[in-house]
Amino acid sequence: MSDATGLFDGVLAAGGVRDLTDDTAWVRAMLDFEAALAAAEAEHGLVDPADAAAVADAAADPSSYDAAALGRAAAGTGNPAGPLVRELTDRAGAAGRIVHLGATSQDVVDTAAMLVAHRALEVLLIDLRVCGDLLADLAERHAGTVQVGRTLLQHALPTTFGVVAASWLSGVDAASDRLVRVRADRLAVQFGGAVGTLASLGERGPAVLTSLAALLGLREAAPWHTERTRVAELAAALGGACGAVATVARDVVLLAQTEVAEVREEGPEGTGGSSTMPHKRNPVAAVAAVASAQQAPGLVATLFAAMAQEHQRAAGSWHAEWVPLRSLLRATGSAAHWLRASLERLRVDEDAMRANVGLTGGLLLAERVTTALAPAAGRLAAHDAVTACCRRVAEGRGELADLLAADPLVGAHLDRSAVAALLDPAGYVGSAAEFTARAVAAHRGRTSR
Amino acid sequence: MSDATGLFDGVLAAGGVRDLTDDTAWVRAMLDFEAALAAAEAEHGLVDPADAAAVADAAADPSSYDAAALGRAAAGTGNPAGPLVRELTDRAGAAGRIVHLGATSQDVVDTAAMLVAHRALEVLLIDLRVCGDLLADLAERHAGTVQVGRTLLQHALPTTFGVVAASWLSGVDAASDRLVRVRADRLAVQFGGAVGTLASLGERGPAVLTSLAALLGLREAAPWHTERTRVAELAAALGGACGAVATVARDVVLLAQTEVAEVREEGPEGTGGSSTMPHKRNPVAAVAAVASAQQAPGLVATLFAAMAQEHQRAAGSWHAEWVPLRSLLRATGSAAHWLRASLERLRVDEDAMRANVGLTGGLLLAERVTTALAPAAGRLAAHDAVTACCRRVAEGRGELADLLAADPLVGAHLDRSAVAALLDPAGYVGSAAEFTARAVAAHRGRTSR
Amino acid sequence: MSDATGLFDGVLAAGGVRDLTDDTAWVRAMLDFEAALAAAEAEHGLVDPADAAAVADAAADPSSYDAAALGRAAAGTGNPAGPLVRELTDRAGAAGRIVHLGATSQDVVDTAAMLVAHRALEVLLIDLRVCGDLLADLAERHAGTVQVGRTLLQHALPTTFGVVAASWLSGVDAASDRLVRVRADRLAVQFGGAVGTLASLGERGPAVLTSLAALLGLREAAPWHTERTRVAELAAALGGACGAVATVARDVVLLAQTEVAEVREEGPEGTGGSSTMPHKRNPVAAVAAVASAQQAPGLVATLFAAMAQEHQRAAGSWHAEWVPLRSLLRATGSAAHWLRASLERLRVDEDAMRANVGLTGGLLLAERVTTALAPAAGRLAAHDAVTACCRRVAEGRGELADLLAADPLVGAHLDRSAVAALLDPAGYVGSAAEFTARAVAAHRGRTSR
Amino acid sequence: MSDATGLFDGVLAAGGVRDLTDDTAWVRAMLDFEAALAAAEAEHGLVDPADAAAVADAAADPSSYDAAALGRAAAGTGNPAGPLVRELTDRAGAAGRIVHLGATSQDVVDTAAMLVAHRALEVLLIDLRVCGDLLADLAERHAGTVQVGRTLLQHALPTTFGVVAASWLSGVDAASDRLVRVRADRLAVQFGGAVGTLASLGERGPAVLTSLAALLGLREAAPWHTERTRVAELAAALGGACGAVATVARDVVLLAQTEVAEVREEGPEGTGGSSTMPHKRNPVAAVAAVASAQQAPGLVATLFAAMAQEHQRAAGSWHAEWVPLRSLLRATGSAAHWLRASLERLRVDEDAMRANVGLTGGLLLAERVTTALAPAAGRLAAHDAVTACCRRVAEGRGELADLLAADPLVGAHLDRSAVAALLDPAGYVGSAAEFTARAVAAHRGRTSR
Repeated sequence: MSDATGLFDGVLAAGGVRDLTDDTAWVRAMLDFEAALAAAEAEHGLVDPADAAAVADAAADPSSYDAAALGRAAAGTGNPAGPLVRELTDRAGAAGRIVHLGATSQDVVDTAAMLVAHRALEVLLIDLRVCGDLLADLAERHAGTVQVGRTLLQHALPTTFGVVAASWLSGVDAASDRLVRVRADRLAVQFGGAVGTLASLGERGPAVLTSLAALLGLREAAPWHTERTRVAELAAALGGACGAVATVARDVVLLAQTEVAEVREEGPEGTGGSSTMPHKRNPVAAVAAVASAQQAPGLVATLFAAMAQEHQRAAGSWHAEWVPLRSLLRATGSAAHWLRASLERLRVDEDAMRANVGLTGGLLLAERVTTALAPAAGRLAAHDAVTACCRRVAEGRGELADLLAADPLVGAHLDRSAVAALLDPAGYVGSAAEFTARAVAAHRGRTSR
Repeated sequence: MSDATGLFDGVLAAGGVRDLTDDTAWVRAMLDFEAALAAAEAEHGLVDPADAAAVADAAADPSSYDAAALGRAAAGTGNPAGPLVRELTDRAGAAGRIVHLGATSQDVVDTAAMLVAHRALEVLLIDLRVCGDLLADLAERHAGTVQVGRTLLQHALPTTFGVVAASWLSGVDAASDRLVRVRADRLAVQFGGAVGTLASLGERGPAVLTSLAALLGLREAAPWHTERTRVAELAAALGGACGAVATVARDVVLLAQTEVAEVREEGPEGTGGSSTMPHKRNPVAAVAAVASAQQAPGLVATLFAAMAQEHQRAAGSWHAEWVPLRSLLRATGSAAHWLRASLERLRVDEDAMRANVGLTGGLLLAERVTTALAPAAGRLAAHDAVTACCRRVAEGRGELADLLAADPLVGAHLDRSAVAALLDPAGYVGSAAEFTARAVAAHRGRTSR
Repeated sequence: MSDATGLFDGVLAAGGVRDLTDDTAWVRAMLDFEAALAAAEAEHGLVDPADAAAVADAAADPSSYDAAALGRAAAGTGNPAGPLVRELTDRAGAAGRIVHLGATSQDVVDTAAMLVAHRALEVLLIDLRVCGDLLADLAERHAGTVQVGRTLLQHALPTTFGVVAASWLSGVDAASDRLVRVRADRLAVQFGGAVGTLASLGERGPAVLTSLAALLGLREAAPWHTERTRVAELAAALGGACGAVATVARDVVLLAQTEVAEVREEGPEGTGGSSTMPHKRNPVAAVAAVASAQQAPGLVATLFAAMAQEHQRAAGSWHAEWVPLRSLLRATGSAAHWLRASLERLRVDEDAMRANVGLTGGLLLAERVTTALAPAAGRLAAHDAVTACCRRVAEGRGELADLLAADPLVGAHLDRSAVAALLDPAGYVGSAAEFTARAVAAHRGRTSR
Repeated sequence: MSDATGLFDGVLAAGGVRDLTDDTAWVRAMLDFEAALAAAEAEHGLVDPADAAAVADAAADPSSYDAAALGRAAAGTGNPAGPLVRELTDRAGAAGRIVHLGATSQDVVDTAAMLVAHRALEVLLIDLRVCGDLLADLAERHAGTVQVGRTLLQHALPTTFGVVAASWLSGVDAASDRLVRVRADRLAVQFGGAVGTLASLGERGPAVLTSLAALLGLREAAPWHTERTRVAELAAALGGACGAVATVARDVVLLAQTEVAEVREEGPEGTGGSSTMPHKRNPVAAVAAVASAQQAPGLVATLFAAMAQEHQRAAGSWHAEWVPLRSLLRATGSAAHWLRASLERLRVDEDAMRANVGLTGGLLLAERVTTALAPAAGRLAAHDAVTACCRRVAEGRGELADLLAADPLVGAHLDRSAVAALLDPAGYVGSAAEFTARAVAAHRGRTSR
């Protein structure tokens, strides 16, 4: 029995992370803690290995535990570990006496949170990596595709779609890198007993801790019951991934506007199209990525605000982490899933890109003509002459190349073909190819490691 | 089938709001919209009343709809209304052709959100009202119970537990009032069609809108697809309630500290006590109230950040509201539920309050002696004399009353009984009783309306 | 001496609110509290009226106080009221002994915060009202200007620019209304003494409180030192205003895109234009409005998170309010100022709106043809026929009206002129005019009150 | 001229970061960018070295620029770089023509933000390091000081103040480490020109970029105008530091409560004490640290929410970063400054710690007696016997050691001295010393690097 909600999950909790963070996944992780604890204690002679094996058996089938019932029972003690431990103890029979030895509820829940995050990040990182691969392909394929560069949503200067995709790629890769590091370095086992001293284990606490971490595949750390930098770093890395995803997805939505139409999503039948509005091509996946990612900043704030935890166990701020952490994992997973879908569905219309570059009749490159003219004609005179021509274009009184070539000052220094060359957007994209190649190379190098 | 998650709900989504905001509740509300729409359209001659009745029949049993399946299908179109409308259309048979006439998906989901909030607020407000009643009782009962007033968690001057409870009451009542107003004035039907013009209804759009609002018990309003002040006001009112609850709950936790012990929760068997730590009296309900309330600020921020919605339907910011709004309703419901539980369990230890007032050996009232002495002895001299006596008390060299009476300057103006009267904390609680009475009267007047 | 920072204020703290919330404004408000307190205490016989007058004199010139020095001294005691009171006491000479009588630092700072907000809101509300007036004018003027309605940034159905502006207006008016109510009902004097009992005033506390509130033009309220619903409601109303402003400003930015070009800002020389990029028309004011408004959600969250204040004065959460409250007032003031500027600069290009409506060659209205055809031809057949024509338009094989009229099924039921009428976007804007008129009327009625 | 505000800065923007982030510091950083750009371009033959030197001269005195005037002028163009460049160009005389060559406003402001952060972090990290040193000293000195461990603010089991301080240390060190890494790896120069292609530099863009980064001491990176993971990681690291600081500071406030009194701050004359309330020992520094740190989560959320920046320059989300980034640097600087002050002032009362351990009359260790008894007496019988004794202690009917020794079951297995040994809290702190030593060693190793 898991939290089979779903009404909004198709949009806001899409992808594999959802199931890896559901109630069953948490119960599984809590049981994994108890089984590994028993094994670690057996290893160090604190309990009988046969008992530890019996505990492992009793903990082997998470789906046989009733998460909803555990949740209801949690109302009594304030967290779900107590009821789970009772249930496991019952199931373990005689071995029940060794269940949870030396541990406290927070040890169970915190370690479970780390395990759940560790497992969820695995699939989340795959989605992000595929996003990166798709973006690297886009960047390479369109390294020479001229696109209008837009600042404040206004046409500014030419760029290439390749370097635009490369910038998206850099963001997604940076966010992935951070998640990889947090996953490897900061997801640690929690084991300290009631007040973080492991008092009931006598001298053997640290040794059990080491074994426990190894068994669970988490980092070893001194008890961090109220030292929550790990949770904050995880939250921040997730929030950063949402931001990187949202950057790409928002741009896709903008580029897919009816008036812009440089990209569109071609999803499976029934996605994005509208039978009653046949002209509509909703970029459903990008929209869902934006919406999923938008959950993050508030959840990150909640987790940061919960860092100041009192004494040896907080009176509320600890409990306050569970739901936002789960929500944040799901939102990020959903954002990554949808960005991947959007990129898989993406169709690039190079003609539309070319047409949009030309929309302002060459005005995009007026600055370049001024610059070329300035050394010979003087900066101010060059500027005035070019501006005058531009104004005439804006008034519909001719083509820029013609007007410039016909202008006395401009014409004195640049002939028609020189003007045309200066107005060629493909000739004014600077280091776009270089920056594109760097981002792609970094990505390829990174994923081949 | 509803979202039967539960592992954390016992703590963080306790109370009646949870079920009133689950998937079934949302499906119910969406179906209510469709049925009411058909009825309103029948009323104005747009559809056949028999068809409207058939739609109402097909919409009558929300639990027969598979919310999880609807959610999965929502991935295709970007929201769950489309799949629900399809299903309803199928079920309505021949009447299916009139289902959803003139409406758009956002009409369904937004109206459902308002209905869900309207219904959830009903039980939430009951919990808050009971909290208010309990606080009013506490305030009255303890109007004369002297307690130490604490600033920056340090003893400052005497107050009464009555006026402390009255201040808690004021906060809870202010938050309730705001929720009541938002519920009555701002929860409005959404009905505008694809772009908010109700184009397909011709002239009859406004009339249908009026009837629809009346049928659903919501306010009438022009389409507000991207005008989200309603959602923000609802979010803020919920966030304010969480803040008011957290204020009380946090104080309960602080007053219940082992060293302070002025209050404790006596919950049902198995709550808060610890069989292995018999001295522990965990204020579980107050802790859960704090934890629940702590979810709110981040969720409020998410909903405020989602306000800037594009054109006639937002590309992400609209979808981004669904989950945080649900989470915020549940967190607030849980906070109110747990505060009610905490107050129902609350035991006040007047002896401990008295003992704590005396903890500093009368130093609390030193300022009062200075003030009394100043007119006759001069402010500075009075201050110096009293401070010297206080220092001796702090050094354990006597009782303050004795030292003051024995002091040449003090003794010249105040005899032993005058000193004792000045040091009586009960005599220095100013307008505490008046402020208490006002808050209680305001509450009684409010709830008797 | 005020906080003459400015590097970012031209963009992010524009308008009149900035100076009304600077250090001098805060010092003024703190001094106003002290002067009014002395006057109120004189009125009730607690102090000599001549002393009260002397205090008022000493408090009359806020700019003669060194705010930076007060700020430095605040580091010692934890808030700026202590140093200010000392300075005022010194300046008041013999009357110094009555300064601050019965008050505590938080009384000064909280009342000052309320006064500062009260004064800042006055100018902020003027800016919002002018925004409303400009939007009402726009809505009226363009009640008949057909514009394409956009959902998910895709063309959907026709609407009017009038009703778009009316929706913007509704948001701004709703936000204004809320601010007006909070200003009138919730900005209250703070006066309670060290622990909220007004102990040192004996019986006369409540009477002084009443007079003090009247003198300062704030609401009377029992001490609310740790009952912060007032601050939260103020924060939420400001955040709501930012959201309403951002909605309009973001739409302006989108409509001003080079490819859309339906509106543009024509600001004073040097704003928004680019001499080197003559085609650029940056909507600078709208961008600054968006940027200013975007500060709000995080600040609102900070103020909501600070609500849970301990006992009779909080150990941090109170102090944590000062800066975000000031920042939020400024951000909202800046957002309102910039939206006003944007609307004053706004030029609407009706031709561009018309051209964009036609961009999809009539496909916008395909749904309408289907609907018209359905009763006679059957829904499915109608749909298939219209869709087939649409596809041909998309493939560039003709005009929609021609193709439809030539279609056997369509042509059997609708002649060329009937088709043309159905494809006329101006004929398919439903209740846009009615909704426009309602919003404008509500605004006019509201501001004429 | 800098932003000499101050009224709240003594409390909320204390320490060295404030001045390093003021307007002059930003102007300095912007000028440093322009000077370094000219130098880098001279290095690669794009401009005359003499001109570059003239620009460096004109940029050498930031305080001679009027930041407030620049800020006012920024209202026209939307950011302060434009006005600064104009002013610098004027001052550079003939060399003015090479100022800002190939750069865009965002290059200036973003690089300045990175420089400002780089410089501010230097002093911030010193404060955090001193905090770490003080905590390491505390941890070592009190490795054997038994203190009561508290969970949910209730006495739980014994711990040591040493390991408590060690946990605080771990949090502060983890936060420092993260800031160090972000500072070294992620603070990068921004240089891309209008749309990130460096078009006007032809082939030489990347070479200039490399030199520019080297000259400024920042990382080299491809243009990241709308790829904001750097800003987000910086924000998160700052927010994490605030959380780590707040954890310690809040515990100090709690331990300093009148009823607990295990620590107190002894600040300079005039801090924290109250002449009128001589018993008060306000932990002013810890309170200010809490208040400063509390600003962070909302600001972090604002910066994360601003990540989704449009195309090649965002229409608002970029501008929206400036103020929260500055505020966040200051808040974190202030939090670190105040924690350092608090720890420098901290006085530990070991007697009070001991007394508090004994407050529950040995009940703290009841669990240990049960555990010791269980193997011989059976778990349930042991539990019942011990619980019965505990209840009698709670009822004031004797000392726990006596009651246990006198209990037939307990007495049968444990004699009086065995009971006493089990009840000795110093004997039940498990691995506290080990965990303390590890944290201290990690800190020493870290800072000796």
